[in-house]
Amino acid sequence: MLDIATRVYNHKWKIDPIVRSLIDTDFYKLLMCQSVFRNRPDAEVRFSLINRSTHIPLANLIDEGELREQLDHIRTLSLSRGESTWLRGNMFYGKRQMFRSDFMEWFENLRLPPYQLERKGDQYELTFEGKWPEVMLWEISALAVLMELRSRAVLNDMGRFELQVLYARAMTRVWEKIERLRQIPDLSIADFGTRRRHGFLWQDWCVQAMIEGLGSRFSGTSNCLIAMRREVEAIGTNAHELPMVYSALAKDDAALRQAPYDVLSDWHDEHDGNLRIILPDTYGTSGFLQDAPDWLAGWTGIRIDSGDPATGAETAIRWWKERGEDPTQKRIIFSDGLDVDKVEELHAKFADRAQVSFGWGTLLTNDFRGLVPNDLLSPFSLVCKAVSANGRPTVKLSDNPEKAMGPADEIARYKRVFNVGDQDRFDVVV
Amino acid sequence: MLDIATRVYNHKWKIDPIVRSLIDTDFYKLLMCQSVFRNRPDAEVRFSLINRSTHIPLANLIDEGELREQLDHIRTLSLSRGESTWLRGNMFYGKRQMFRSDFMEWFENLRLPPYQLERKGDQYELTFEGKWPEVMLWEISALAVLMELRSRAVLNDMGRFELQVLYARAMTRVWEKIERLRQIPDLSIADFGTRRRHGFLWQDWCVQAMIEGLGSRFSGTSNCLIAMRREVEAIGTNAHELPMVYSALAKDDAALRQAPYDVLSDWHDEHDGNLRIILPDTYGTSGFLQDAPDWLAGWTGIRIDSGDPATGAETAIRWWKERGEDPTQKRIIFSDGLDVDKVEELHAKFADRAQVSFGWGTLLTNDFRGLVPNDLLSPFSLVCKAVSANGRPTVKLSDNPEKAMGPADEIARYKRVFNVGDQDRFDVVV
Repeated sequence: MLDIATRVYNHKWKIDPIVRSLIDTDFYKLLMCQSVFRNRPDAEVRFSLINRSTHIPLANLIDEGELREQLDHIRTLSLSRGESTWLRGNMFYGKRQMFRSDFMEWFENLRLPPYQLERKGDQYELTFEGKWPEVMLWEISALAVLMELRSRAVLNDMGRFELQVLYARAMTRVWEKIERLRQIPDLSIADFGTRRRHGFLWQDWCVQAMIEGLGSRFSGTSNCLIAMRREVEAIGTNAHELPMVYSALAKDDAALRQAPYDVLSDWHDEHDGNLRIILPDTYGTSGFLQDAPDWLAGWTGIRIDSGDPATGAETAIRWWKERGEDPTQKRIIFSDGLDVDKVEELHAKFADRAQVSFGWGTLLTNDFRGLVPNDLLSPFSLVCKAVSANGRPTVKLSDNPEKAMGPADEIARYKRVFNVGDQDRFDVVV
Repeated sequence: MLDIATRVYNHKWKIDPIVRSLIDTDFYKLLMCQSVFRNRPDAEVRFSLINRSTHIPLANLIDEGELREQLDHIRTLSLSRGESTWLRGNMFYGKRQMFRSDFMEWFENLRLPPYQLERKGDQYELTFEGKWPEVMLWEISALAVLMELRSRAVLNDMGRFELQVLYARAMTRVWEKIERLRQIPDLSIADFGTRRRHGFLWQDWCVQAMIEGLGSRFSGTSNCLIAMRREVEAIGTNAHELPMVYSALAKDDAALRQAPYDVLSDWHDEHDGNLRIILPDTYGTSGFLQDAPDWLAGWTGIRIDSGDPATGAETAIRWWKERGEDPTQKRIIFSDGLDVDKVEELHAKFADRAQVSFGWGTLLTNDFRGLVPNDLLSPFSLVCKAVSANGRPTVKLSDNPEKAMGPADEIARYKRVFNVGDQDRFDVVV
């Protein structure tokens, strides 16, 4: 039976929105937002879109009018009653009332601040400026909009059955990955693929397929909206943005050297258990661990997000042992550029030596490589980062110089302050 | 928006019918039925289900109650007004009013006759007895019901996403075949896959994918219901059942020798052009062509349905030349156990030497090989044949002894009468 009302309603669409909700974002954004809301509410930051895959001419592929429509739509969103209820009432990482009342009241009244969009050659310059707790919530939405508009531009020219077969192929590929992953005993893997997903509906499909195919091996999704709808765990802790902004705000070299630990000290006051996960690579993992205070060794685990992941894990295990901790009781979360081969390899290598888990991103939710001519749906490396705080530039070094960002003189200064020498280079695919 | 009415209506289903219409059958059945209705309306025939794949224990896989429900449902079907209008008003093979008024009036009042069903070990004995024009219309429906009930039995235990991925894989496979086929210039290929289809909805999908993917290379479908709904050509001419029953009705060896030609003589009076297609293999192609009257060489083409197809085509081309005909003006239709490799090979070999076309059956509409554990969805060789006429057994020899059927003494007699010597054996896959 034709649902006439739905069909007529669809006629009226001005746009088919890509971001449907303020919680269609990564869980760690909300955790960090609450921390920033408490500790640095007045910092003025600037976030900026950076397309590391300069061979993808985003401004030629994506219509500026459509991009503005999508971004304008996001500015109309506010937290719905059900979303607020879920954030207030749900248990996260075994804890109820993760989000404090003052934060929730602020969040319920939030609308995202304005954006600045300008075409520069074949790329877009897209920036967001304002109070840190507000501006930071643009990151994931902006990335998801650009990724999906690019997908839609390519899909626009395809026939109906051609489209169905495209998704048939993509589904088959995801399912084959799931079939391999379910052979791994005691696997723990989560979806971290919101920011560079092919599209919202596709991410939602991938999560549901993981639920059915992996059962208890699937630990949850970083996407709050999908976690809520599919009734699975929301997953995530903290990201580079915290040490980057804290460091930019530091008044001198001594304060800079201390800034990454200040972040974790603030975090320590707020969270315990599985939320105490160290992200050590912002200014080089080795130096960070060497100079770390002893209380940090008591944290639950570490997340390896750049450099060679096995080397990173070895470094962490060595460090725990030096500090008198038992690595087999510690969690190591791998989250950088994973696909099934890498998961299998890392699990085989470390499952007996630590609590291993995986945050699987782009190659879960956007592996359309090779599925259309000229590979026009292949994922690419797009990020949206804090580039300045109170007018001072931010810097990221990471364990891979390909991922470094910031002005050259500031990078030199950070390398000196954090004692970072030569680093191995690794290709950044996604 | 939830369509409540549809959902509630679905609750009320007693069964989800497999055969939805009396024209959910092969077009050639209706052409033959009209011919039989005119020429042999009172012949009493018996059709019987024969599972040539005895390793498939149909009676263990398919519940007898469900099978009876499906067969009983078919007996409630009658020609709808729209179906009748389509048969009366449509142009078939460039001809209007293909179906005469007396036949249409009879067909409009038809209900299928009773069936006899009995479990014998791990197989079902399913037979249909009565007037030839009525009983013959059971064949395709009965096969489609058994094939789909077997599919459903396997699918019943699968999860929702597992099912979606199963169909994703099957769609991808069909589409890859279509992508290969569209490389062939001047291809002409039709769907002949009704009888051994995975299911009705699946056949309908395959036809639509062929329409989009092959464009003018897709010549149509043998399935009348799908041809009507998708507005494509209904394709087909005649089948072994005609010479088999005519032969069984023959009074002596001389009449038997003549019977296959009597069939085509009756057909000649009724049809011209593209419907004059010789099916020569019922009692051996070589002998049939050798002894054929000259007027048969004037027919439009030949259908190769058993034995080695290239050999059959060479035999036909040689025969046309002997009779002073130009083979490049003749049509050769290949329809036996085709898949893409075979189509490519035969097209390459004969496209310059004749008008080549293909009737693609089971490996279009039921290629689920290797898609589930233990290959439980693999197609198998099920037929439903006329086994007797006016109490006398029918015989089929074909160009492959694996496809021969009938009592041993009658087979011997037919081989003598039709002068059939040793034959090459070919595996019957589907």
